[in-house]
Amino acid sequence: MTLTLEQLNAAPAAEAAALLDGLYEHSPWITEAALAQRPFRSMAHIKHALVQVLAQAAPEQQLGLIRAHPELAGKAMVSKTLTAESTNEQNKAGLTDCTPEEFARIQQLNADYNARFGFPFILAVRGPRGTGLTKKEIIDTFARRLSNHPDFERAEALRNIHRIAEIRLNDKFGYEPVLGNDVWDWQEKLSVHTDPGYAELGQLTVTYLTDAHRACAQRISHWMRDCGFDEVEIDAVGNVVGRYRPAAESGKYLMTGSHYDTVRNGGKYDGRLGIFVPMACVRELHRQHRRLPFGIEVVAFAEEEGQRYKATFLGSGALIGDFKQEWLDQKDADGITMREAMEHAGLCIADIPRLRRDAAQYLGFVEVHIEQGPVLNELDIPLGVVTSINGGVRYVCEMTGMASHAGTTPMDRRRDAALGVAELALYMEQRAAQDGDSVATIGMLQVPNGSINVVPGRCQFSMDMRAPTDPQRDAMVADVLARLEEIAQRRGLQYKAELSMKAAAAPSAPEWQQRWEAAVQALGVPLYRMPSGAGHDAMKLHEVMPQAMLFVRGLNGGISHNPLESSTADDMQLAVDAFAHVLNQLAQETA
Amino acid sequence: MTLTLEQLNAAPAAEAAALLDGLYEHSPWITEAALAQRPFRSMAHIKHALVQVLAQAAPEQQLGLIRAHPELAGKAMVSKTLTAESTNEQNKAGLTDCTPEEFARIQQLNADYNARFGFPFILAVRGPRGTGLTKKEIIDTFARRLSNHPDFERAEALRNIHRIAEIRLNDKFGYEPVLGNDVWDWQEKLSVHTDPGYAELGQLTVTYLTDAHRACAQRISHWMRDCGFDEVEIDAVGNVVGRYRPAAESGKYLMTGSHYDTVRNGGKYDGRLGIFVPMACVRELHRQHRRLPFGIEVVAFAEEEGQRYKATFLGSGALIGDFKQEWLDQKDADGITMREAMEHAGLCIADIPRLRRDAAQYLGFVEVHIEQGPVLNELDIPLGVVTSINGGVRYVCEMTGMASHAGTTPMDRRRDAALGVAELALYMEQRAAQDGDSVATIGMLQVPNGSINVVPGRCQFSMDMRAPTDPQRDAMVADVLARLEEIAQRRGLQYKAELSMKAAAAPSAPEWQQRWEAAVQALGVPLYRMPSGAGHDAMKLHEVMPQAMLFVRGLNGGISHNPLESSTADDMQLAVDAFAHVLNQLAQETA
Repeated sequence: MTLTLEQLNAAPAAEAAALLDGLYEHSPWITEAALAQRPFRSMAHIKHALVQVLAQAAPEQQLGLIRAHPELAGKAMVSKTLTAESTNEQNKAGLTDCTPEEFARIQQLNADYNARFGFPFILAVRGPRGTGLTKKEIIDTFARRLSNHPDFERAEALRNIHRIAEIRLNDKFGYEPVLGNDVWDWQEKLSVHTDPGYAELGQLTVTYLTDAHRACAQRISHWMRDCGFDEVEIDAVGNVVGRYRPAAESGKYLMTGSHYDTVRNGGKYDGRLGIFVPMACVRELHRQHRRLPFGIEVVAFAEEEGQRYKATFLGSGALIGDFKQEWLDQKDADGITMREAMEHAGLCIADIPRLRRDAAQYLGFVEVHIEQGPVLNELDIPLGVVTSINGGVRYVCEMTGMASHAGTTPMDRRRDAALGVAELALYMEQRAAQDGDSVATIGMLQVPNGSINVVPGRCQFSMDMRAPTDPQRDAMVADVLARLEEIAQRRGLQYKAELSMKAAAAPSAPEWQQRWEAAVQALGVPLYRMPSGAGHDAMKLHEVMPQAMLFVRGLNGGISHNPLESSTADDMQLAVDAFAHVLNQLAQETA
Repeated sequence: MTLTLEQLNAAPAAEAAALLDGLYEHSPWITEAALAQRPFRSMAHIKHALVQVLAQAAPEQQLGLIRAHPELAGKAMVSKTLTAESTNEQNKAGLTDCTPEEFARIQQLNADYNARFGFPFILAVRGPRGTGLTKKEIIDTFARRLSNHPDFERAEALRNIHRIAEIRLNDKFGYEPVLGNDVWDWQEKLSVHTDPGYAELGQLTVTYLTDAHRACAQRISHWMRDCGFDEVEIDAVGNVVGRYRPAAESGKYLMTGSHYDTVRNGGKYDGRLGIFVPMACVRELHRQHRRLPFGIEVVAFAEEEGQRYKATFLGSGALIGDFKQEWLDQKDADGITMREAMEHAGLCIADIPRLRRDAAQYLGFVEVHIEQGPVLNELDIPLGVVTSINGGVRYVCEMTGMASHAGTTPMDRRRDAALGVAELALYMEQRAAQDGDSVATIGMLQVPNGSINVVPGRCQFSMDMRAPTDPQRDAMVADVLARLEEIAQRRGLQYKAELSMKAAAAPSAPEWQQRWEAAVQALGVPLYRMPSGAGHDAMKLHEVMPQAMLFVRGLNGGISHNPLESSTADDMQLAVDAFAHVLNQLAQETA
């Protein structure tokens, strides 16, 4: 007997609560309060209502809920006193099947965690599609979270409790995120290919034109054919391009996609999610024998991360004619030139210029990507609409004052280089915050050869500043540089600030951003607009056609470029649904 | 024909100005204005009057004066268009006798310096007693000053101009700082002894019980005998102790002295000045066949710097019974234990406990020491009366936040460990400044493995806080630790702060401090009271008897623990005069 939305919306309160019994461990009050928001438009709507109830609960209530949970593979599991739901979940995650060493390790972690935070460690562990984590990854996550701040850990526990409730809710509705699962599975299967030396470490690393990289291209091209793309090819730089034709030959194309290369020891979703989400949509169109007024060109970009060669965005760059011939002579760590690597892979270097697209043939470019940041995770919102890919600058700097004796130099006679940087750092924090969407960071900071009893005479530091538009970025940079000058003058310091990087912002095309917004709202997901702090392939296409991106929430605090990068099949399903919605909007508009 | 104070005080204004003609390069207005302060009580009085005139002059006047000076070994020297005074000075410093390489180097420095600051480099260079700098050291100082801040360099130029005027003034009065010269010479002669490996580098390093160290003890004991001390011995820890008996056998003793060991690549005056100043006074008493109601015990302490063994203040500690037996088993870098080193030096380890002094036999302890800080140099005041040897604490700390992507983590969702430390650093600066005499320093600071695009998850730093009294220090430390806690709470950070050192303050005994004050004022030197930020042997004696210290100005910004440490024979003479004054006061009091 599975539940339907109609049933739930129609049931009297007590009955409805009974229908949702067990969502939150020993805490029916959450469900009861959320039910007051009926009628629900979608599963996503129910989930968000639940999130809101808990967010508005008193801190003691939240803590009570956290403490109502069993330890991971703890005494309750051993003594079989878990709730039915917990038993099922710990079982599926393989925790009932630990080696004695794993079990001992988890018990120690449980003890340490409880001593530190005063509540049990909670992780939604119901198997790979629930969290993306294997037994080993669960233990790694546990160890990592032990060093978090208590406030963060409390919030993280609540987020995991929601994820557990989401899985339990899906069960009640007999709901399966079918397409989300397929996207999940494609990513899982693709992650078996990893560069030499990394497989042994259980790490995912796929850099440009390695064997693993070429295997990925082969797999993706094969899957594209299976999905019903009309043309599939691996192009002259290694991009996998699948084209699903429009209803009429004269129709333009929508371009979409993302990259399949990874950083070293990276995650499974960075880039790849943006290939498989539209692939799932095209497969559905093909299954329905449906053609749209426009074609769909899905590109799995060969290179975005700049790991093997310093040629970041090579794949998307080639499509706008931005392939630099001098890259061909770059050598990797083993002395292999890019030219040799491309020849070895059978790519036709001479054809690269022909990859350049005629923008007039395209409606625009959209890209789905995992957020790679903490925002959606903290807000418990699965999707975010990108307003702009931030423009950025980087500076490498040094402040110079005068080293002197920390005991004998009075405060008013110092030229402390580090204090000048401290003042600048706090100004940058406040100046960026004032903009809302801007960020400014001093990521590198050190007093070279600092001694405990010497006033710092030098301080080396970096500055990274990003904003959704170039004028906003430039205004911030000008303010920061002016403050740097003012601080140096006032404190009798000198400084060098060398610009090491400058990238233009890529604001989303308003009409394309609006399409994503309409899609998200139609799903019953709260609309959340945000800039992208990181760079993406869409930045390159932005130079020749309108673009807009959709972000998908990352779990574990949004950690990325790390094996703990994670998402859920539920969220991937929502991304597929949103993408399909955009296709339908476009079909109506261009019909 | 030499000038006398009486003559100068009696002369009509124009005549007096003519008597002092040429003190300041092409700038008679300074002398003229200073003469308005007649009658002068002493040479020191005239010098301070000159300093004050220039300090109150308009910035353009100061700059005009600086620009009126010739370049060091510059075109004017080559073309022989220098003033007579300048020719004499550059000649004595050996600058007219440069090698072609040295000459080329100086020309390049002159060009760079002028380009950077817009005025010529000025250094009082009239031979070793003028500055303590050899030709090589002059060039090193030049190169070092090139990187100073323009404000500092302007002040440094003015200070050197005063030093030049002081030397010229001495010439006019036929004045020789005779005892200051002797103190200078003793220090110069002692500095030829340096540990193996450092002589080749031209560096001064004398660590506990090395051959150089034992040679220093031998030289000092020899000089003490020459000066007329009644008993001279090298004691069981290597201190050189000279006793000049009181008029009556029942008389108590005044103890004084400082250390003769050095840091690695140190200066010639740190410690040693405090041995030779009282030695010069005893020699004068002996020459005059004069006995005081009290005896004088001058101790050249064998060890203060803790360089070869971690046993700082070993020499003065032994006199108060604070010699730790476990030190004997400490090994130096070559594996030689302190016990072996002492036996090798022929010291009677068994006698160490007998070094402990009976405080009832002593009036108190005084110590003369070079300031090792910038204060007196900046104020152009030759002597400073120490109010207290500051008490201090040191902490080694780490702030922990959460490392995250500098692009994708909004400002309000960061836990930036470095920003927490930045805030603390600025608070410490302000909190210490609010006390006046306290200092607080973050000398070590780094974001380990920081990346330009990663929000700092960790930041390591040190804290050093010192104050003239323990309650003042403890109040500051409590405020800083409270702020640290508050910052961590507010920013969601965690921290560790480990106490690594805690030393009690040693406030000067009021009656002893007053004796120094009376002496300084009697000399016509402005009275300036200041705490000692660094530790000194007086801290140990403080535990058993009253003590007070006198500081002597250091040149070159007060640089110390460095070969550029410098002073002048004039200032040393003032220290001898002040010491003699204290002896006379005591003689009157105890008569």
